[in-house]
Amino acid sequence: MADLIAPSILSADFARLGEEVDNVLKAGADIVHFDVMDNHFVPNLTIGPLVCEALRKHGVTADIDVHLMVEPVDRIIPDFAKAGASYITFHPEASRHIDRSLQMIRDLGCKSGLVFNPATPLSHLEHVLDKVDMILLMSVNPGFGGQSFIPSALDKLRQARKIIDNSGFDIRLEIDGGVKVDNIREIKAAGADTFVAGSAIFSQPDYKKVIDEMRAEMAKA
Amino acid sequence: MADLIAPSILSADFARLGEEVDNVLKAGADIVHFDVMDNHFVPNLTIGPLVCEALRKHGVTADIDVHLMVEPVDRIIPDFAKAGASYITFHPEASRHIDRSLQMIRDLGCKSGLVFNPATPLSHLEHVLDKVDMILLMSVNPGFGGQSFIPSALDKLRQARKIIDNSGFDIRLEIDGGVKVDNIREIKAAGADTFVAGSAIFSQPDYKKVIDEMRAEMAKA
Amino acid sequence: MADLIAPSILSADFARLGEEVDNVLKAGADIVHFDVMDNHFVPNLTIGPLVCEALRKHGVTADIDVHLMVEPVDRIIPDFAKAGASYITFHPEASRHIDRSLQMIRDLGCKSGLVFNPATPLSHLEHVLDKVDMILLMSVNPGFGGQSFIPSALDKLRQARKIIDNSGFDIRLEIDGGVKVDNIREIKAAGADTFVAGSAIFSQPDYKKVIDEMRAEMAKA
Amino acid sequence: MADLIAPSILSADFARLGEEVDNVLKAGADIVHFDVMDNHFVPNLTIGPLVCEALRKHGVTADIDVHLMVEPVDRIIPDFAKAGASYITFHPEASRHIDRSLQMIRDLGCKSGLVFNPATPLSHLEHVLDKVDMILLMSVNPGFGGQSFIPSALDKLRQARKIIDNSGFDIRLEIDGGVKVDNIREIKAAGADTFVAGSAIFSQPDYKKVIDEMRAEMAKA
Amino acid sequence: MADLIAPSILSADFARLGEEVDNVLKAGADIVHFDVMDNHFVPNLTIGPLVCEALRKHGVTADIDVHLMVEPVDRIIPDFAKAGASYITFHPEASRHIDRSLQMIRDLGCKSGLVFNPATPLSHLEHVLDKVDMILLMSVNPGFGGQSFIPSALDKLRQARKIIDNSGFDIRLEIDGGVKVDNIREIKAAGADTFVAGSAIFSQPDYKKVIDEMRAEMAKA
Amino acid sequence: MADLIAPSILSADFARLGEEVDNVLKAGADIVHFDVMDNHFVPNLTIGPLVCEALRKHGVTADIDVHLMVEPVDRIIPDFAKAGASYITFHPEASRHIDRSLQMIRDLGCKSGLVFNPATPLSHLEHVLDKVDMILLMSVNPGFGGQSFIPSALDKLRQARKIIDNSGFDIRLEIDGGVKVDNIREIKAAGADTFVAGSAIFSQPDYKKVIDEMRAEMAKA
Repeated sequence: MADLIAPSILSADFARLGEEVDNVLKAGADIVHFDVMDNHFVPNLTIGPLVCEALRKHGVTADIDVHLMVEPVDRIIPDFAKAGASYITFHPEASRHIDRSLQMIRDLGCKSGLVFNPATPLSHLEHVLDKVDMILLMSVNPGFGGQSFIPSALDKLRQARKIIDNSGFDIRLEIDGGVKVDNIREIKAAGADTFVAGSAIFSQPDYKKVIDEMRAEMAKA
Repeated sequence: MADLIAPSILSADFARLGEEVDNVLKAGADIVHFDVMDNHFVPNLTIGPLVCEALRKHGVTADIDVHLMVEPVDRIIPDFAKAGASYITFHPEASRHIDRSLQMIRDLGCKSGLVFNPATPLSHLEHVLDKVDMILLMSVNPGFGGQSFIPSALDKLRQARKIIDNSGFDIRLEIDGGVKVDNIREIKAAGADTFVAGSAIFSQPDYKKVIDEMRAEMAKA
Repeated sequence: MADLIAPSILSADFARLGEEVDNVLKAGADIVHFDVMDNHFVPNLTIGPLVCEALRKHGVTADIDVHLMVEPVDRIIPDFAKAGASYITFHPEASRHIDRSLQMIRDLGCKSGLVFNPATPLSHLEHVLDKVDMILLMSVNPGFGGQSFIPSALDKLRQARKIIDNSGFDIRLEIDGGVKVDNIREIKAAGADTFVAGSAIFSQPDYKKVIDEMRAEMAKA
Repeated sequence: MADLIAPSILSADFARLGEEVDNVLKAGADIVHFDVMDNHFVPNLTIGPLVCEALRKHGVTADIDVHLMVEPVDRIIPDFAKAGASYITFHPEASRHIDRSLQMIRDLGCKSGLVFNPATPLSHLEHVLDKVDMILLMSVNPGFGGQSFIPSALDKLRQARKIIDNSGFDIRLEIDGGVKVDNIREIKAAGADTFVAGSAIFSQPDYKKVIDEMRAEMAKA
Repeated sequence: MADLIAPSILSADFARLGEEVDNVLKAGADIVHFDVMDNHFVPNLTIGPLVCEALRKHGVTADIDVHLMVEPVDRIIPDFAKAGASYITFHPEASRHIDRSLQMIRDLGCKSGLVFNPATPLSHLEHVLDKVDMILLMSVNPGFGGQSFIPSALDKLRQARKIIDNSGFDIRLEIDGGVKVDNIREIKAAGADTFVAGSAIFSQPDYKKVIDEMRAEMAKA
Repeated sequence: MADLIAPSILSADFARLGEEVDNVLKAGADIVHFDVMDNHFVPNLTIGPLVCEALRKHGVTADIDVHLMVEPVDRIIPDFAKAGASYITFHPEASRHIDRSLQMIRDLGCKSGLVFNPATPLSHLEHVLDKVDMILLMSVNPGFGGQSFIPSALDKLRQARKIIDNSGFDIRLEIDGGVKVDNIREIKAAGADTFVAGSAIFSQPDYKKVIDEMRAEMAKA
């Protein structure tokens, strides 16, 4: 599987989001990471289906990778599928019926995934590996800004990588939180293949430069 | 009090929101109506503080009128105050401590308001008229698109107008839901002075034309 | 409007419910009262849509009057409409969007109503009188057995009767809780036109005898 | 009805609560006000039944007036009745079944009451006046310290006084929040007969002096 | 332990439930499976204690195996014990205090069990194996009709079988969802000893024929 | 690490709590165990930050070990830190963001910990061992009195001991529930180093005698 760089648009300029997304994709990003917070699962509220739909209408054709930090999840999944989401991932704590939520995502034509908070054990994966297209490990606690990469996430990445490889399924292993040029090499070495980066990219004047540096680092892993 | 036209940006193009807001204000709109839904108080999730902040950074200086369709409200109020909100209004059903929430909004330097769903009685106003800068009456059920103006809202407007006039306080009376050129005259006649319009404005090619027509109709009331 | 006797099937024998309902209708009952409890709005759990549907398949053609003691209400309303409900009533405390829930019931082809707990003020009716086909006043606290008719419900009936008469709308006024041969006369005199009775009917060997006695008492009101 | 001074023990020294309560009663206080917060209805957690029981075991014979700032209320009411509460009051927003909760309090041998937040309308009283022994009006928002008396509470007191007098029932009218020597006169004049005071009493070295001053002021009303 | 066939009465005719249960037991079923849904843990509401009690009054003496799809569970457990339940099982996600809920079931004279949704890991069993009489694995997602047996449930059955055998305790291993004549053989081979079947039995004209075919298939395992 | 005896003040006399705590510390107890219940996570409500603060003002300098039986936990953690808590422990089921809650406790200058209900698996520890200063195993179900030590807690203690020893971190292993002179020896042998005891100590006339006996038993382990 090719490595993917997934800029989180939460760090983009929302006054000209279409242009921002165009620019970051032109600069070499692979997919668009879309963080949905509902002020219940996490103490913040961000953006919903209508923003996703606007990106599609604007002409974005790259995959949109929707990370639901909401609870419960079943009611809003169809809204995002309709709004053009490519991936829809959610936290196991946020659904009473994880197998059903994953199946619903696939039935709606999207790719499905589970997200693990830093402390959440990977045992939630055990019986649904055949229904998961992506595993997202959080390396910060979602819902807050300005956090650094939690070091123990590297071990968790290695553990998840082993689970994926043993499963025989095609499952992406995504990492989100504090990913930067400085640490992307060891993150990739630990097993990640999809890299979310927010302010590390959007806070820089030259998106291409950061993304190129990230790829250069990843190549060394 | 001058009548205000308040375009709801939920109907704008989110890929170029700054430009949309600039345009609608240049076209004669007075304030920006900002609908916040959390997928709990209403079955939809829209936009949060970071979008509000982006508009301020983009240079919007008009009042931003934040309508919280979230519950509970106290945690997110400071976020919107910090993000540049001018008005913050919420539903009485969404706060156990209405007086405190209203007071918190004012203490943070914003104007405060209560929003009434179509069936919600105005009795919630009785003991807080001195803490309310705006009363917003919903003339559709919030959280859903494509609804028409509920006729009984006209009576409710007249009732609210009477309450305001008797109170001696400076309180705006806002109406939201199905407001169009066709009915804005009778809505104004019933007592409203602040008019939210979403698709009625943004679905048209020429924002100025619609807003001018609305004002012409209002002048006849 | 004709007076209606509405036996509550919660007091019937659930091992042979079809026969019980046939018998009580043959004995002169007008409509079937169907109490739905979800162990959240009230501390009991009773029967859901599949029991309603079974009665329709069994051949019951009388109106089925579904009283929802559940919260929230919007998800289950379509299930009951599909299962053959004639009336669907709910408590204002159980819906954030009362106007919308009422409208949904009518849109699905059923008659709509609001139910008032003994302490709940009738002010919830004020802005939705045009969307209500039935007002149900509880004269006991729902969810518990073995309670007597709360005397202050008579005053509330008179108050509701006045509201209905002043409204000009065709709205049934139903009473539920502790209705018996002994008190049905004064209950009718206070304004009720639809009378729920559970154990008063089903605990007796001869349903017809009780119902006839009730009608005889009502005739004196 | 005699006027009652009700020191709120939240302001007492919890390391020697029995002694504090003894002292304040000896200083002339009439009843003990007991504020229960659950970190859900209000954002604070205070004291529960075991502290009430400890006061009874310590020998306190004065009435203990338990104000529940918890939701829901039905599960904990019997615990407080067993722990020796004399009055148990709760907020109408905190019970789906207000009539039943009030009745339960009386059935357990206590006196019952409803508490009104500053913005809560008195309409919740309408159908339960015969089941209420006390009406408590909050003149601050509960759950927070350091607030001043909300002036509009005086009007609300007058309104409640009228409701009580018209009802013909023996109902206490209690006020809680910011009551001090300075304002107790006009509070009494507005209709209150039971006065909660916390730091106004316990922050002073001489409880008797404050209570005597309060009574002197009340005598002028 | 003898293998048990447990028809789910959700698929029976609720207008004549007593007769249906009599018939299916006469046709060779061993126990009655009773699915309780509360419209919160799952999006459906079915039947509560009064239906269970009606079956006992009707004369049913077979074990009634109550599967609680409700949350929380502690309030309703005593109601089902009193209504004649033999087994009471619940989902670990639905109780904060699993050990206590299991103990309560046994203290009330019933057999206790835990139910595992398709994605729920079996690790919840680890510390309560001595308090569990039945483990129920869901092979569909509860609360919805028309689903097929989830293939990965076979592996989970084998895993649960091993846990039971290693524990040394007498624990039933029940399977629910999509069980049919066609697959019951491999399900038994994977370790199940109690087989819930709903429409597979009740949708057929001859209950005995299906049950006999099931037993014939099981004999081959 | 030295063994610690931690009397639970829930069993002390709340009318003279300062004296009780002084006495039990003088009698040889090491730290003060402080049980916080919110009537939501457990069906009881006990004591909050103001009681903790009163102990500090009273002069207690021993560690105060606050066990939060509340949900959610993040809002109240700073209150306890400010009130003088030394340890703050919570249940993993009570926080969506366990890593963040643990980090917040440490950032506020306290020691952090996780508490495991009898049935809760230890897998919640796996990714946060570096952020935990204490692991508390419940050997009764919290929120209820009069329970005996659950025997399977001994195995769980051994399992937790192994996890701690393998981790290389300094983590206390605390046990709470039914600890007495009779069983403290085998509890220590199973790996505990911090022993909560409530009525075992406070119900006795001579605290020192019990504590001495406990230490004598522990010495034999």
